[in-house]
Parts: sequence; C-alpha cells; structure tokens
Amino acid sequence: MSERWLDEIRWTSDGLVPVIAQQADSGKVMMFAWMNRESLALTVSEGYAVYWSRSRNRLWRKGEESGHRQKVLGVYLDCDEDVILLKIEQQGGIACHTGRESCFYRTLKDEQWQAVEPVLKDPQTIYKK
Amino acid sequence: MSERWLDEIRWTSDGLVPVIAQQADSGKVMMFAWMNRESLALTVSEGYAVYWSRSRNRLWRKGEESGHRQKVLGVYLDCDEDVILLKIEQQGGIACHTGRESCFYRTLKDEQWQAVEPVLKDPQTIYKK
Repeated sequence: MSERWLDEIRWTSDGLVPVIAQQADSGKVMMFAWMNRESLALTVSEGYAVYWSRSRNRLWRKGEESGHRQKVLGVYLDCDEDVILLKIEQQGGIACHTGRESCFYRTLKDEQWQAVEPVLKDPQTIYKK
Repeated sequence: MSERWLDEIRWTSDGLVPVIAQQADSGKVMMFAWMNRESLALTVSEGYAVYWSRSRNRLWRKGEESGHRQKVLGVYLDCDEDVILLKIEQQGGIACHTGRESCFYRTLKDEQWQAVEPVLKDPQTIYKK
C-alpha cells in the first residue's frame, strides 16, 4: 500500500492526529479520539476504527473489550490536513464507555452541564472482564 | 455569570480545549478548532463561536472577516470533559476558508485524498481586504 496519503497529514509533534467519529446514517457525532500513523493505516486496512490510546500508550481497537466496534464507511481530511473525520457505523449503537450512544451526552443549560442522553446499557455489563 | 461549568472542563496544559462545530439542522461536521477559557465564555455570552487561533495567538471571532459567523444553538461536553461539540447555524452556508461548506471536503479514495465538495464562493471575494 502506498503511504503518500499518510505523509500528507500534518501530525502533531507527538505524531498524532485528532479524529472525530460520526455515525454515517444519523450524522450524530459519537466520539473524539486520537490516532497515530500506524493506527490510521490499520483503520483503513482493517475497515474498523483503531485509535491510539494516549492514557494507555498503545493501539486501541475500539470495541476490543465491549464489542462496540466502529465500521469505517468513509475517511475525510480537513483543509489544514490536521484533523480526520470518520463516517462510521457504530456496532451495538453505543460509542461511550458510560453506555450511552454518544460521548457528547451533556449540554450546557442554566450554566450547568446536564446529561440529556439515556444510558442504554449498564457499563458493568459492557466491560465484564 | 458563574464559571463553575468552565472549571469542569479538563483544559490541555496550554489551557485549550478542542472544539467540533456541527451544523445543527443537517448534522454536517463543518470544522474543528480550539478554544481557551475566555473564548468559550465569550462564545456562550455572545451566542456566536469565538475560537482561539493558535497560529495568530489571539481570539478569533469566526466570521470576523468573512461574515461567516456561527450562531451557537447548543454546547455539548464529552464523557472525559475534554472535548466540546457546538451545534451551530452556519451563516452564509460556508465554514471553510477555501469557500466550501465544510472543512472536511476531501475523502480517501484509491489511496488519495480527493476533493468531493464544490467551492461555493471564491475565497478572493470572501476575504477582500
């Protein structure tokens, strides 16, 4: 596989690029994470989102524990070549580790962050290891 | 105005937070930028997106030159309290400095980034100063 398309990305000094994952059919923004060169290459070759976990300092195949994998339907690059947008199909309908559909489940109302999305599945049953 | 909701955000070591701007009605992801504490407070108090320009090192009232302001309809926070999602109404229908609707106008096809959105307005006429 040619890697020229990877060279065109303006990686951070840490070798990362921010990634937005958007549900392809509904347009819902599901989550935000980071990728390094290897994880983006794997995302494209495997067809499922592979992030770089900055907290665990390792490749993170989204859904590797929960089964909530993200099938990649499209990969987009922004005008500055430093942000990636993925159009995905969220398996299980849950992207967030809290058991909600999207990680962006809180909205600012009356100067407070208020949860406006239901928990669809108890996180205890998602991560049962 | 109480600033407790600002304290709940986990700012980067540079005092910034990444921000995704999404067109409220269509769900289209328009752009990605950064805010500092002051710009997020101004975004909420003014009702229009105010970013922090890292390249110019100053507040950036989106649309200050182009007129393509972003009316803020909703502000969301993710599960890790370190990413903001704005639901906006894009004035002029153009978010990108290239004259396209969205900054994410290139998609990966045959191992190449290919532009898949039309230029709606010549950038020369957008920034005529």
